Amino acid sequence: MKVLPSIHSPKDLRLIKKEHLPTLCQELRDTIISTISKNGGHLGSSLGAVEIITALHYVFNTPEDKIIFDTGHQAYAHKLLTGRQKEFEHIRQKGGISGFPKRYESPYDAFGAGHASTALSAALGMAIARDQKKENSKVIAVVGDGCLTGGMAYEALQNAGLLASDMLIILNDNQMFISQRVGALGKFLTKLLTKQYVQMAEERAAKFLKRFDELGNNAAKLAKRARSILFPGTIFEEMGLRYFGPVNGNNIDEMIEVLESVKDVKGPVILHAVTKKGKGYKPAEEKPTKFHGIGIFDVETGDTIGKANGITFTQAFSNTLVKLAEKDDRINAITAAMPEGTGLDAFRDKFPSRYFDVGIAEEHAATFAAGMAACGLKPVYALYSSFAQRCYDQIVHDVALQKLPVVFALDRAGIVGEDGPTHHGAFDLSFLRTVPDLIISAPADENELQHLLKTGLDANLPFVLRYPRGAGFGVEMDAKPKRLEIGKGVWLKQGKDLTIAAIGNRVHPALKAAQLLEEKGLHCGVINMRFVKPLDSALLDEALKISPRLVTVEDNSLVGGFGSAVAEYTADKQAACKLLRLGIPDEFVEHAKSAQLYEQLGINAEKIAAHILEWKK
Amino acid sequence: MKVLPSIHSPKDLRLIKKEHLPTLCQELRDTIISTISKNGGHLGSSLGAVEIITALHYVFNTPEDKIIFDTGHQAYAHKLLTGRQKEFEHIRQKGGISGFPKRYESPYDAFGAGHASTALSAALGMAIARDQKKENSKVIAVVGDGCLTGGMAYEALQNAGLLASDMLIILNDNQMFISQRVGALGKFLTKLLTKQYVQMAEERAAKFLKRFDELGNNAAKLAKRARSILFPGTIFEEMGLRYFGPVNGNNIDEMIEVLESVKDVKGPVILHAVTKKGKGYKPAEEKPTKFHGIGIFDVETGDTIGKANGITFTQAFSNTLVKLAEKDDRINAITAAMPEGTGLDAFRDKFPSRYFDVGIAEEHAATFAAGMAACGLKPVYALYSSFAQRCYDQIVHDVALQKLPVVFALDRAGIVGEDGPTHHGAFDLSFLRTVPDLIISAPADENELQHLLKTGLDANLPFVLRYPRGAGFGVEMDAKPKRLEIGKGVWLKQGKDLTIAAIGNRVHPALKAAQLLEEKGLHCGVINMRFVKPLDSALLDEALKISPRLVTVEDNSLVGGFGSAVAEYTADKQAACKLLRLGIPDEFVEHAKSAQLYEQLGINAEKIAAHILEWKK
Repeated sequence: MKVLPSIHSPKDLRLIKKEHLPTLCQELRDTIISTISKNGGHLGSSLGAVEIITALHYVFNTPEDKIIFDTGHQAYAHKLLTGRQKEFEHIRQKGGISGFPKRYESPYDAFGAGHASTALSAALGMAIARDQKKENSKVIAVVGDGCLTGGMAYEALQNAGLLASDMLIILNDNQMFISQRVGALGKFLTKLLTKQYVQMAEERAAKFLKRFDELGNNAAKLAKRARSILFPGTIFEEMGLRYFGPVNGNNIDEMIEVLESVKDVKGPVILHAVTKKGKGYKPAEEKPTKFHGIGIFDVETGDTIGKANGITFTQAFSNTLVKLAEKDDRINAITAAMPEGTGLDAFRDKFPSRYFDVGIAEEHAATFAAGMAACGLKPVYALYSSFAQRCYDQIVHDVALQKLPVVFALDRAGIVGEDGPTHHGAFDLSFLRTVPDLIISAPADENELQHLLKTGLDANLPFVLRYPRGAGFGVEMDAKPKRLEIGKGVWLKQGKDLTIAAIGNRVHPALKAAQLLEEKGLHCGVINMRFVKPLDSALLDEALKISPRLVTVEDNSLVGGFGSAVAEYTADKQAACKLLRLGIPDEFVEHAKSAQLYEQLGINAEKIAAHILEWKK
Repeated sequence: MKVLPSIHSPKDLRLIKKEHLPTLCQELRDTIISTISKNGGHLGSSLGAVEIITALHYVFNTPEDKIIFDTGHQAYAHKLLTGRQKEFEHIRQKGGISGFPKRYESPYDAFGAGHASTALSAALGMAIARDQKKENSKVIAVVGDGCLTGGMAYEALQNAGLLASDMLIILNDNQMFISQRVGALGKFLTKLLTKQYVQMAEERAAKFLKRFDELGNNAAKLAKRARSILFPGTIFEEMGLRYFGPVNGNNIDEMIEVLESVKDVKGPVILHAVTKKGKGYKPAEEKPTKFHGIGIFDVETGDTIGKANGITFTQAFSNTLVKLAEKDDRINAITAAMPEGTGLDAFRDKFPSRYFDVGIAEEHAATFAAGMAACGLKPVYALYSSFAQRCYDQIVHDVALQKLPVVFALDRAGIVGEDGPTHHGAFDLSFLRTVPDLIISAPADENELQHLLKTGLDANLPFVLRYPRGAGFGVEMDAKPKRLEIGKGVWLKQGKDLTIAAIGNRVHPALKAAQLLEEKGLHCGVINMRFVKPLDSALLDEALKISPRLVTVEDNSLVGGFGSAVAEYTADKQAACKLLRLGIPDEFVEHAKSAQLYEQLGINAEKIAAHILEWKK
């Protein structure tokens, strides 16, 4: 008999005998694996966190007690245990539940997430609110080891130590992050984490402490302190937090026992739980990076199904950067913990000494790049568009203000699909366009990407290259990247009735829309703008001479983006111009397949054509 | 005979005998005090750092060796020692040198600054560049204790520990920050800093270590570790940095001696120097907060000269918040280390348990506020507009996406005057306007500010209130703050020839411009828009019915700001509209008095009138 179907809420869970919980955890794993194999999603982290989540809902009185998940991609078991088993089938699908915690989705989702390192701050705010309202609920933050590499988490820990409000922090340490990538602190922690080491140290410490019995009270105190530094908790204890652990976070009995014993400890408490990413699904345990975020796959073999044809924008970036770096040893590559996602892994493997993964530290990475550029290197900082929001001030204050030649390669710009509103790169053209002295470009396809990357590296000025997630347009790749003229777009097609000015990955759909309209007797010119800043006003003037009707198309917010730049230009010029602006409206866009979203937002070829027809009436 | 005038560059300094250096330091102090008493500026930090700076230029081979100042407001002695004595007279004045390090100003200014916590990242980038270029220069970062409260500094320290590149970090610890405000780590450091404590601990440790001689090698090692935790360096050492100190940073001999001894230590090194803020000027030593950043003052008495009449925008905010918080205990106030600058000190004194200073941790503060709001409190997060760039992602991801009712009080929006381009809040309307579900308001004057603050606290939605630095318009204050309709502006004056739509502190100048134009026979309507988002399109429609000529005026960038919103609206509506947009052009604005900058940018009353006249021709 299955246990999971009988659990409609954590209340049901708390009625179950402990001995059934391992079975339940297995059922949670099976459900997660089979669903994600069909829908795609964040498999590895969610499998690793099954016991932690089950134990939390078992021990604590959710939703009055609040669990705040950092990043949120580990929370699938949480969704299954909190009344969303039926909905889980459609996770990450259009109209289905989100892949992340979401306040509007369930009272059990105490705080939404998607980006890393935010949970501690939110939890602390909630703990303070609880104290002020004189309530008794618990506040529990579940954070990964990666989260602690972000400066924001450090800010929160420091503040938590000072405010001393009751709060439990589960450090879900799947060792991925620390061991592979990051920071001296991480290295220090990892060294101390392996079980052998802990055992050995325990034994040594016991012997060591025994010797002190003869030395009196004062020495014993110091020795106790000496003992504590054998264990990873010291740094937290110095910040005013009480540290417990490490415990085996994949052992449900151990987790429940430990949670019962720490749940009433006062003040901020860190419980360090070691887990295995991908736990319980062999392919994911063996290839944790591949299964971190994965598309549709075969459960038996772990093989991905239905790979896209042709290269992605990311691959074009990856290949071109390696190619250019072979001939120019000033080129350095920086990532904030996304080597695979950004395609910098190829650069890392080829030029390890010029490659820097700084952890989830977007702010530091930007100014680190600025420091390099100030001394004659050519840093390329590759990150996702929505994470660039994290280093906005550094782009303004450290890079643009000093005109330092950093190339920002913004992957996942525009619509990203199933990851939804926290991950869409819907705003970059807007928030970057207002920064003086920044060059902003967006390639129409994977071939133009290689040319714009070369252009950026040769520009000797702050340069942004933004491009979307996923497949390119299958266009032929030129043999060599070539420099393009900065601030210049190109006519792709002439047409007397109106001109479509498109940017980035909306250029090809615009061209196709023009073809569709041609069939209806409407002759549209099409411009590939290439640059949002500087804006090619001469090209717009040419278009306006042919027809006063101008259509802009972009995969960025209509507020402040490319179409806004054109509206500003035509307004300032007092041009006789009738403008139709197509792009992302002023709202957060939900998750769905990218193709569905382009359709919904009216910026695929068919919808562009339809909008124009309607407008021309 | 004076020493300072003979020093045209650090080369001259390095020729001077050590015994003359105390005299030189005194002369540097005298010059700084007398100049800043006339020009205003950051007095306290610069006085405290005189010996550190002098010793650095004495020991190191600048500018080949690079000094990177964090925040940069402590670097006046650096400017005086690096060939800028003559220019120093006009520091912070229009056309004069900047109050901050600036790469374009001097080769000795290795990296510009203004915002905190950036120096470590930049220095690390420079160290890596040096290593790759196989150069031998030194890289030295000078950071205050406050800087270390910022998460970005932690990110950089972590990365520095990992990369292990040679780099000297001077922790200029003037104890201000740590002791008064911040974090558990800070408290821990401070406790260990007082000289008495260090001495006591030294003695104890010596005794303690002696006992271990008998216990053999292993125990001695552990004991050594135990000893190190008596001293503040542990946390840094855990991160892979070598720690030296604390030393007396106001003793030039000690500083030189220590720098000589650590200058060739390999890897990242922290030298902890304790200094006194305001050192050598009694009023500044006694009132360090007042003299942190100060206007013109009397050197004899330390009294500020020429206080503005009437209340400032900041005071109106401060008073109103206290007034509203008396009646609503859900109101909480949060600052990132700016209680005086934001006027939250009054709130702090009245409601200490509802007041939170999180340190220079803008990111954490925003999400901390979001956590509070998620649990029914009413947090008001007050910070400077340019520092809001630091928590942009948190505003998008944690607040707006979840529609949480946080009120962001953005002080220092628009032009700030003498602090220049790092501090102008020139971009907030642009980067915030693209964020869905955010309400953005800007009061015309100090009276409207109180009403908009009440409106924001009642809105139950994410709400931005942005207002400028400095004096209000001397308008009468209504007795009680009242709720205004969200998204609604008001007609201030009707006029048939054109309409001026102004926002924030440009409303009164726009009104005055209209009066000036009236004298020339031009009848201008004037609208106070109040909200940039939602935009009062009905009001714009009314205006367009009267005349197709519309003028927008704002103290924000023309790229993406308020005028851009109007351009988008009129373009999308296909309105018959001739638009003139006045505001900050697409460039970084240098330092000067605010009045000079409004003139220069063409947005004071006279220039607004002149622009309109010219346009109407």
